[in-house]
Formats: sequence, C-alpha cells, structure tokens
Amino acid sequence: MRSYSTAAAEAFRTWLSARYTTIDKLNEAWGNRFWSMEYRSFDEVDLPMAAVTELNPSHVLDFYRFSSDQVASYNELQVEIIRKHSPGRFITHNFMGAFLDFDHFKLSRSIDFASWDSYPLGFTDSIAATGFTEAERLRYAKTGHPDISAFHHDLYRAMTAKRFWVMEQQPGPVNWAQWNPSPAPGMVRLWTWEALAHGAEVVSFFRWRQAPFAQEQMHAGLNRPDNVLDVGGLEAGETAKELASSWWQGAEKLPHERAPVALVFNYDGAWMHEVQPQGRSFSYLELVFTWYTSLRRHGVDVDIVPPGADLTSYKAIFVPSLPHLSEATLASFEKAAGVTVFGIRSGAKTESFQIPRNMPPGPLQKLLGLKVTRVESLRPKLQRALTWRNKSYACPQWAETLEVDDNVEVLASFADQTPAIVRQGKRHYVGVWPSRELCLDLVSAALSQACIEATLLHEDVRIKRRGGITFAFNFGIESQRAPASSDAAYVLGGQFIAPRNLSAWKC
Amino acid sequence: MRSYSTAAAEAFRTWLSARYTTIDKLNEAWGNRFWSMEYRSFDEVDLPMAAVTELNPSHVLDFYRFSSDQVASYNELQVEIIRKHSPGRFITHNFMGAFLDFDHFKLSRSIDFASWDSYPLGFTDSIAATGFTEAERLRYAKTGHPDISAFHHDLYRAMTAKRFWVMEQQPGPVNWAQWNPSPAPGMVRLWTWEALAHGAEVVSFFRWRQAPFAQEQMHAGLNRPDNVLDVGGLEAGETAKELASSWWQGAEKLPHERAPVALVFNYDGAWMHEVQPQGRSFSYLELVFTWYTSLRRHGVDVDIVPPGADLTSYKAIFVPSLPHLSEATLASFEKAAGVTVFGIRSGAKTESFQIPRNMPPGPLQKLLGLKVTRVESLRPKLQRALTWRNKSYACPQWAETLEVDDNVEVLASFADQTPAIVRQGKRHYVGVWPSRELCLDLVSAALSQACIEATLLHEDVRIKRRGGITFAFNFGIESQRAPASSDAAYVLGGQFIAPRNLSAWKC
Amino acid sequence: MRSYSTAAAEAFRTWLSARYTTIDKLNEAWGNRFWSMEYRSFDEVDLPMAAVTELNPSHVLDFYRFSSDQVASYNELQVEIIRKHSPGRFITHNFMGAFLDFDHFKLSRSIDFASWDSYPLGFTDSIAATGFTEAERLRYAKTGHPDISAFHHDLYRAMTAKRFWVMEQQPGPVNWAQWNPSPAPGMVRLWTWEALAHGAEVVSFFRWRQAPFAQEQMHAGLNRPDNVLDVGGLEAGETAKELASSWWQGAEKLPHERAPVALVFNYDGAWMHEVQPQGRSFSYLELVFTWYTSLRRHGVDVDIVPPGADLTSYKAIFVPSLPHLSEATLASFEKAAGVTVFGIRSGAKTESFQIPRNMPPGPLQKLLGLKVTRVESLRPKLQRALTWRNKSYACPQWAETLEVDDNVEVLASFADQTPAIVRQGKRHYVGVWPSRELCLDLVSAALSQACIEATLLHEDVRIKRRGGITFAFNFGIESQRAPASSDAAYVLGGQFIAPRNLSAWKC
Repeated sequence: MRSYSTAAAEAFRTWLSARYTTIDKLNEAWGNRFWSMEYRSFDEVDLPMAAVTELNPSHVLDFYRFSSDQVASYNELQVEIIRKHSPGRFITHNFMGAFLDFDHFKLSRSIDFASWDSYPLGFTDSIAATGFTEAERLRYAKTGHPDISAFHHDLYRAMTAKRFWVMEQQPGPVNWAQWNPSPAPGMVRLWTWEALAHGAEVVSFFRWRQAPFAQEQMHAGLNRPDNVLDVGGLEAGETAKELASSWWQGAEKLPHERAPVALVFNYDGAWMHEVQPQGRSFSYLELVFTWYTSLRRHGVDVDIVPPGADLTSYKAIFVPSLPHLSEATLASFEKAAGVTVFGIRSGAKTESFQIPRNMPPGPLQKLLGLKVTRVESLRPKLQRALTWRNKSYACPQWAETLEVDDNVEVLASFADQTPAIVRQGKRHYVGVWPSRELCLDLVSAALSQACIEATLLHEDVRIKRRGGITFAFNFGIESQRAPASSDAAYVLGGQFIAPRNLSAWKC
Repeated sequence: MRSYSTAAAEAFRTWLSARYTTIDKLNEAWGNRFWSMEYRSFDEVDLPMAAVTELNPSHVLDFYRFSSDQVASYNELQVEIIRKHSPGRFITHNFMGAFLDFDHFKLSRSIDFASWDSYPLGFTDSIAATGFTEAERLRYAKTGHPDISAFHHDLYRAMTAKRFWVMEQQPGPVNWAQWNPSPAPGMVRLWTWEALAHGAEVVSFFRWRQAPFAQEQMHAGLNRPDNVLDVGGLEAGETAKELASSWWQGAEKLPHERAPVALVFNYDGAWMHEVQPQGRSFSYLELVFTWYTSLRRHGVDVDIVPPGADLTSYKAIFVPSLPHLSEATLASFEKAAGVTVFGIRSGAKTESFQIPRNMPPGPLQKLLGLKVTRVESLRPKLQRALTWRNKSYACPQWAETLEVDDNVEVLASFADQTPAIVRQGKRHYVGVWPSRELCLDLVSAALSQACIEATLLHEDVRIKRRGGITFAFNFGIESQRAPASSDAAYVLGGQFIAPRNLSAWKC
Repeated sequence: MRSYSTAAAEAFRTWLSARYTTIDKLNEAWGNRFWSMEYRSFDEVDLPMAAVTELNPSHVLDFYRFSSDQVASYNELQVEIIRKHSPGRFITHNFMGAFLDFDHFKLSRSIDFASWDSYPLGFTDSIAATGFTEAERLRYAKTGHPDISAFHHDLYRAMTAKRFWVMEQQPGPVNWAQWNPSPAPGMVRLWTWEALAHGAEVVSFFRWRQAPFAQEQMHAGLNRPDNVLDVGGLEAGETAKELASSWWQGAEKLPHERAPVALVFNYDGAWMHEVQPQGRSFSYLELVFTWYTSLRRHGVDVDIVPPGADLTSYKAIFVPSLPHLSEATLASFEKAAGVTVFGIRSGAKTESFQIPRNMPPGPLQKLLGLKVTRVESLRPKLQRALTWRNKSYACPQWAETLEVDDNVEVLASFADQTPAIVRQGKRHYVGVWPSRELCLDLVSAALSQACIEATLLHEDVRIKRRGGITFAFNFGIESQRAPASSDAAYVLGGQFIAPRNLSAWKC
C-alpha cells in the first residue's frame, strides 16, 4: 500500500531533511555506523528496499512515518479546497477495518469526524492479523466476531473524540473475502443497533442495490439486482421503524459519555512491531484484541485513546504495548490516577528505533520500577508458564526477563522464580503475552482494583451503554439471560436475549 | 499458460473489435460504467493485468476466450497445411490431463480425433483442482484414483464423439509429479484395458526406453536405460497377447455405444468459475468429479457432452454447473426427455458475465420454476445442513437460497425450512454443493427415476462396457466380487476380481 | 545465493570451455540431443534459468559447480594477497550452518583451518532442510537439537583434517530466526564445552556487547546494551575458569584422535539431489542427519570425511548417499577394510548427471553385487514396509528395487519378497530411506559387526571424547546417568549429568 516510486523517494528525502536537518543527525538516529551504512548526504538515501540482507529498521520506520504523513497531508490539501469552495459543510472520510498503514489520528485532525466501512463477516473470515482462532472464525462465520465491529466503532469514535458514522454497513454476503457466507438472519439489524450503541450518528448501507455487472456483482445490497428488497433491506427497514421510538429519540440526543476504561492504541507502535516483530507470529493487532476482548467480556465500555491523551478521567487504563513514549505521553501516564496496566515491549524503543540506553522500558523505568533485561519470542506451542494467585498459566508468543526495584511487588513469577507480572502502586507491568485465560483474569483483577463493576459475560454476549440505555447483543445460537437488574425497563427484547438479537433497557 | 505479450494485446483488440463491432457495445457488455471504466476506443483496451484493485471479470473472461480461440485457430492453420501436403492421413493432437485453459471441443473441430496423455499416478498426486482428499491421494498413490483416467477417456472420446487414442500411457514411475511412486504391479495392464474399455483405439506408451540423460531421465519407459524390458514393458506385452484373442477382436470392431447417462462439461463455464470463484476453494473440476465419481460408483457408463449436444437419447442428464446457457443449449434441455439434474450456479451468468436481469438461473427459470435469490460460499468445515428423505446431510462449499413456483416440488429443505433441492417434473435443481454422501444418494435416486439399473460398487471398483463386454476394474488391495450375473461368461479373470486386476465378461 | 548476472554468464562460458574443450563434448555430457538442445558454440550457452519447461539438470549441476569454484578461487585470490603482505599468520574463514552452496572442502585448501558460526537455537528453529520434526523443534527450542552443533563441529573439523575454531558462538537470544527464544540456563557453557570436546581450538562469542541500534539490535551479546554482563557472559566466564584447570590444559595439548567411524559427506552429491530431488521432500541434509543422529545416539565419535579420503583406519564407514563416485573414490572404498554401509542413490549418476549405462550403483556394482533397476519417491505417510530380523519397519520418502548377484546376502526384504537391504561381505547397501527406528537398529548392527563398543544413549544425551577425556552432554530437562564405568574419575560433574549440563571423566 506504500509507494516505492521515484517521486516517493524524492519526497522521502525532503521529509528526512526537514526532520533531521543534517545527515549526521540522521546517521546517529539510525545507528548507521553499524555495517558502515553512513550516508554522506540526504541524496544518498534511497527507499528501504532491495537490501543485500536486511533493512535498517530505523530506515523502514521513518519511511512508514513519511508514507503516513503523505496520506495525511494529501487529505489536508483536499480538505482545504473543499472548505474554501463549500464552506459550512462537514467533512468526513471513510476508513477501513484493521488497516494500520497510516496514522488515522493524524489524518483526522483535518476532518470533522471519522466514518468507516463495517464488514463483520469479511473481516472475521479474512484478516489474519487479528489472531482469531480457526474455531472462532467458524463460530462467528455468519455473525462476525463479537468484537470486530465494536473495536472499530470504539477506535474510529476516538478519532475526533466525538461523532462517527458507519459509511458502509454490510447488508448481506460480500464478494471479496476468502469465503463469503450469508449473514445469519437478524444480523443486519443487530449490527445496526450495535453501531448506534457505540455512538454512530449514522449507519449507511453499502449498497442500495446489488449491481448485476462488473467487479462487485456478487456484493449484496439492500435490494437484489432485480430490485426486490433483500433480507438486509427488510432488516434495515425494521430497524428504521425502531429508531423512530421515543426512547431512542431521547437517548441519541445525549452526548456519548466517557467510558470508565481507556485502551491506548498507537499506529507508530504498530509500525515498530511490524518492522521488527522478533517472532514471526507477533501481531500488534492480535495483542490489542487479546486485551480488548478481555475487557469487553467483562461488560465494560471502553474508550480507545491515542498516546498522550488526557487520562485523568479513567478509572483503568490498559496499554497492550507502547514501544515508544514521548515526554508528553509519559506525563499523561504520570498524571493518570487510574489503575494502569502496561504490556510487553512498552518503552522498548527510542523514537528513532533504538534500545533505550538505560534499557527498556526506557522512560517508564521510574514509573514501573523495573528493567527488562531480556526478551524472547516463542514458537507456537512453546509456552512460558507462570504462577499468579496460586494458579498456573501457560503463555504463548513472548516473555520478558524483569529486574525489579526493591519496592516493587511481584504478583506473578515464572517457574524459575523470576518476576513475570509486577506492580508499583497502581501501575502494573505484564511481562508476557497473556494467554486468553490469563488476560481475562488480569482484567478482572484490574477492574476490581479500579472499583469498576464487572461480571464475566457469556462469550457470545457483549454490552454497550449509550444515553442511559444498556444494549446487550447475542452473537450466538442460544438465548442468553440479559445481565440486567430485575427491575430493568426493557425497550428492546427482554430478559432473555434471543439468538442473533439484542435486548436494551433503561438503567 | 496464457500469453500477456504485446502481440497478444494487439490480437486481443482485433478479436474484441470483431466480437463487439463498437466500443459502446463492449462497454455495455462488460458493465464498464461501474467504477467509470468506459473505454473510448478498442485501442484503449489492455490485457487484464496490473489493475489497482481487481480486474473486471467480463474483461478477464473475454481474454480467456480469446486465448482459447488463438490456440484453436493456430491448430487449424497447421491442420490446413498438413491436409494440403499430406492428404488422406488422419490428424490428431495429444491433450493433457485436467487442463482447461482452452476449449478442447472447439479445437477438436479441425482434427479427426483426440488423443491424450494418461498419467494416473502423477495426476492423482499433483492436481489440486480435483479435490481428492489426502486419504484418497494416499489410498490410490500406486494405482491412480479410479476415476482419473476414466474421466479423461470419457472426456476426450467426446471431442469428436467417436474415436480417441491414448498417445502416452504411463509405463512406470515418472519424474514430474510432487512424488513419484512406482505403479503397483498389474497397473500398466489394468490402465491399458481400462482405456480400451472406454473406447480407445490405440494405447501407446511413453516412452519406449528410459533416456539416461537430460530432463526426463527419471521418467520410466517400457524398457530400462540398459535396454532390459521393465515391469511396464512386460505388462504391456502380456496385454498385447490378450488383445489377440478372438473375443476382443470381435468386440473392438463394434462401434462404441452411447451411454445411458450424459454429463454436461463446459470449458467456458470453467473459466467463469475461475474468474470469480466467490469462495477461495471453489473448483469446477472438483464439482464435476463429485458428480462423475458418484455416477461411476453406480456402475453406469457416462458420456461427457458439451452444452448444446443432442440429449434426446439419454435417460439421465447431469449438469454439475453450467453458468451460462445459449439459446441452443436451452433448447437441447427442453427437448431432452431424460431425468435432468442441474447443479449450483447453473444459469447464473449472461454470456458477458453479468447476473441475469431476471436473476439466476436466468434462461432456466421457466424450466425449473425457481429463482436463486442469494448464494453463499462456505469456509472449510462450515457446512449447511439439509434434510432429504428424513436423512440429514451437511454440505460444504456452497449453498443457495431458492424461491420456487407453487407447482415445484421441494425435495429437501435447509434447517430453516427453505428449499435446498427441488424438482419440476423430471428436472431437478440441487442448490448446494453436494457432500459426497448426498451426491451418491442423489445419483442413486435420479438413476432409479430414469429406470437405469444401478448398484453401488465398492469404492475401489469401476465398470465399463464396450462391444458387448463388461469390464470390471479393481484398484484396491483386496479381491472384490465381480458385479456379474451367475451365468456370466468370463473372458478375463473370473468371479473374483483380483487386486489391481480386472475381470471381463460377455453380457 | 548464486549470481545470475551477465558477468557470471560470461565466466560460466569460460569455465565450460575449459572443462569440455569442445562444444560437442559438452553436448554429449549434458545429453543435449534430448529435446534438440544442442549448442553450436559455447557462446550459445546461457545461465540455467527462464526455460519454457524445466532446465537440463546437467546444465544446472555444472552451474552449481562453477559457482562453487568461483567462491573458492576468489578466496584463493584474497589468501594470496594476505600471505604476501602478512606472512607467517594463519588464515581462516568462518563458515555457516547448513550451508551447502559451495564445496567447503575445495575452498578450505587455501586456508589454514576452518572456523564457523554456531547458532544452535536459530538453526533448530529455522532450517527446514534438517528434517527435524515439529516435536523436536519444540523439545530442543531452548537448547538446540543435540546434533546440530556437533554435526557442524565434525564437518568443519574435517575441512583441513585438523584444527577448527568456532568464530561466533550464540550467547543468548538472536534476532534472525523465525522465533528467538532464550537459551536455557547453562547452555552457553554446555555449547562451549561441546565445541571444545569436538576439537575446537577457540570458541569466540558473537558479540561482545549487544548493539542497541540498527539491524541486529535484538541479537544478544555477552554484555547487555547497558554494558552489564548478560547470562551468556556469566556462563562464558565460568567456563573460562574451568578451562584453566590442569586436566584440560593437559588434554587440549593432545592431537585430536581419529574416530572409529567415518561418515562420507559430499557437496557435489548435495547439489545432485537438489537439482533433481525426484520427490518434493527429498533433502540430502535430512538423510545425512538421519544417519549422523543414529551414530551419535550410540555414543560413538564420528569423523566426517569427503569422498576419496583415506578410509583405511576406520572400523565402520557410513555413506548416506553418494550419487557420483570418481575412480579415486571407488578405490578408497575398495581399500577400506571396515564395515561399509551405502545408502540410497549411491552411484546413481555419472559425473555429468546421467544414469550410468550399466545402471546404478554404477561403479559400485561390483563391490556391492547389485543393480538398482527402479526407484520411487513417496508422499508423506506413504511408506514402504520391510522386514529385517523378523521385525517390520515402515520406511518413508524413498525405496529402490534391487537385482542382486547370487552371492549377495539379502538381509531385509519388502513385503513382495524383493530385497531391500543386502550385503556382500562387509559392504552393505540399504535400498530405502531408513525410518529413524530402522536407522538406529542398522547402525547398532553395523557397529557390532565392526566390533565398535556402543550403547544406545538417552535421546537427550550425547558423548564426545578428546585428549583422554569423555564428555557427556545432557540437553534434556531431567538428570541422566553418565554412561561411564564405576571407577571413572570425574573432572566435571559426576555420575548424574544435571539437566542442560555436562559431566566429563578420564577413561
């Protein structure tokens, strides 16, 4: 998706020259004395490609940043023109799912709000980076994974920290996934309510009518090619009627409340992990989903925030991995009063992709009272066992060796008695890729410490609150009891959430 | 295998110009208003490659047709020269296995009869598109799958609807498959008789003597590199002696009888499925084999025929999938009096690869009394259950949603009570990719309805009739009882077919 | 790794011209009359690439030989310059693991001794060609496979038949394998002693300190990036102290004794198998490891030797596969008095990659009293059963059909009673790829016949002798009893070898 053209090379040099001012500073930042890679001038710098062995990761990272900046500045250019010639209108841009190639936060500075294209089935089927197991891909083949849309709703709502739209909602089978099953009956309505519950102002369907020709002829619309309303169209119509009800008219007027929990998400960090995963199966997105799913299984609303965001209002803050922290970001963590949980590889790199001279977690050393002296990546099925609260967990993918200060509390240890999970006050560091089981238990403990009410939901059920209404969604094939108090006033569904359906109540 | 050269591009434009006469008609046929792909002249049309996202399927399909036509017209050119300078000789051409890149029916118009190269072990080992399971590839590693040669014999016999040859018969281990095991003792004789039973006039072996040098030095011949007769040579000699017997001399003079069953096979349809499979694992050849194997397991002889062939003599007609039907093809089905079974995606496309305006099965709607309003492709292990005759079947790959006329009989329904298999009189539509179990049972029922005598053979056994002789082949490691009446007069073998051997009797 | 440049093509023609003198001789050697590939002059010969179908294997093989010669002669050129300007110094070169692209024996003629880079974890994780099972890759993920370093120590010690160094010893997790786990505690010491036991003069670690920047920033050193001694550094220090002991000071002065067993290893043969594997999964290195591991599991020291080496001192000689034998090599086998075991595809090719006119094993026919009349390669899970000493073994990958002279003893037969393993006096031929079980039993029998004392070690344990000391290494997680006599004088460890540790005793 990134351009390796001559024009891109030219612009990259200009970008580098502006960033580093002198070639010596670039050489220093990239560690170019390694393998005698020093440049004599910016003119000598090429795009990171076609190296004899491997590429300098600092070089690659800067190219990713440059490419992202190009997208953002091109968007800005267009926005300026539109604002000039069409004043007073809002401007949005529809983003995609699981797409990390540019910094959406940066681009979003120039638009009024973000929108995105939600294809729960295709994403569940085809995106390897989420790390969904084959069993999950089968279980949710006709509903989408319960977190795949929710995560993106929360992510894109964060772009301008207010409004967002779903620009394209999947209305039936699509044409572009590896396999394209039919959504289970009810899912088009469920997805629509789910988007609204997560704060969407508008849910727009793609497309009105299935085109009977060319590339997308197998992409369903609200209407069939013969202009008859399709299943998705009927469900959209049914939902539209529900939207006219007074309870919703009242609820949607209210501003979207801040969630009690923040999850720090970071494009620059995603690139760092992409540039040097250090283990072939290491996926930042999978790590983020591991934490996000554990949170959502506990029924808590989550705000996704960029590094450096104001964290003072959050009772609990989760940082799956934040390889580099600026001073401002460090300051936001220092100011945060909530329980904070940092994951692996946080603070592991300087801005220019070097190992901090004081060792990871670099700027977080003082806050957390520890040094990471070694890391290891683990082949599938090679696991690292730890004991936490007298229970043993076997963790996959990644494990770290921690040296902790005397006043740091060791919560969990590896079999060799070295620390695995530690805390200093309200700040935790988790030195492993948590297994799903461990992640659920860690989240439970952290929420409890943060005095956030939480109960573990059935794996098919998710909850979201908006405007005084609690929505509960059932992605499974069996009815589930709504996690509502006995005096809940149901506005949709009832005490038992039907399969592929929802209940909603005032609380 | 298709040329993407500048010369090909030039010729493709000429071909398109002849086909569409005006660029507006091409734009209309390809649906080029989608994504603003309209061309202003034929000069603007390039080969279908290097698109930013995906290619227009109509564009690709026409390129496949053009490429096929190039092969056919080049053959014609050569045939004309040969006929002129060497009059009175027959001309043939040796085709390959599982090769669908050009329309063999079209090419065969200019030759006297088809021949082909039969490598049962290599094809069983290496051709993914057949969909053979790993268990089958192991079970038949040293014999070839019982249907792999038979299918091609039947296919290439159909080319001129009369004679065919085996130009190259595998005589021992070859060099080009992924793995190259030794044929089980007896197989060279079995394959030879099998070809003859299917109507081959000549079985020629490749090669006379194994060449001890260059690329094919590991390709066995009838003779070893040291000029000693190899196992294959000995078996070929033994078979040659059997061929001298009077019963065979009589039988082979008789014209090859029409089979009671026709299977409609179609290159243009194969390309349509290749261009937009809609599910990553969708293979037309696998679908065809699913039906062909089910037929052959019932001991019936099968004629493979192209669309539009005269079907009036067949008691039963099977159409695994025929995405597009011309008016002539539709007429041939209307005229056919036999039981006809249409499979998924039949009538699903117009000639120029659009969805028919009246919805699939397009021109077949009236004949079948139904509309296909939705299709879905299914991830491996994601199956769609249906109930037929009180038995449940879980079907893989593909399922369709059918809207049927009042007078249509619903034979099988999905769990949600929607129709899965239906019929209108003698014409059936099967709206799923049939599991192997379902396909066997469907074929059994259709043959029974067509009053064709059939019994299910052991999975290792196949039968073929020619010139009043019934041949039974045993590909397995255990003896099998020949499915012959008690008064059968055996000319080869006897009541028990030895492993990797055959019996033959007059009937 | 080989150059396909214009310069390489030019040099290749010169090399061919020197080798064949006339183009007719080249045409004859390569069998170019096949497919009418004859050249009219050396100018017409191109590099072996971009063929319409496949490449002539003789052409490819000669290109591999040429490329290897280029490496050797370039090294020679550099050596000459260094010797001239820096007389009296030794010259070495550090080789890599599992790297067969040039003939290391040939290159080593111009250096004083070989050295190599030992990365047991990375090699165990990432080198497919060894054929280690997934279970083995997991079992030894943190120790390296017990034979991976030992094999290379023995191989590179053979280069000058005397000294060798380890130039780079892995000191901790590296950055370049698929996954990069942390070595188990103790392994840096174990690997160091293992190298010394195999004859290394020097074990040097890569690197002194982990560089915190650029490509290899995740490659551990003896020191951490913050200049603190890392685990590997501590273990290296501990080992250094042990090296100062008088028993070792005495032992290391002694010349490295010849082993009782020779294993013939051959780069030219490796290329032959690479050029035409005949079965997709055929790997020469895997076959060599199958035999090497079986030998080392019996606790015997092994000398790896090139073809043509003086074999007179060896009690047992193992030849996993030697596709081509020169007259000198044949003579060395004729002179050898030890038990000799030849494996599959030995003598199967002439020097120019043709099948010998008298059939394989070509020049070995007389010595072994047999002809190989057919070979077959086997799909995974397709096995060939044989019976040896009343025990049945199912062998994978490869099986041969043998015609044996009357005086040849058939030791094992296939199910069809044809010979599988035979011997003529002390010379054996094994016509299958031995399963691991069979290989262990064959080695046991051959060692016994050769009067070499051997006992089967635990799978995690290996033994090596040097200078009157026997070292026993335990790669497992459980203590193992040292295979020493009760009066052994331990100089390291004791009767029980601790996990990931060693014992050593005088014997």
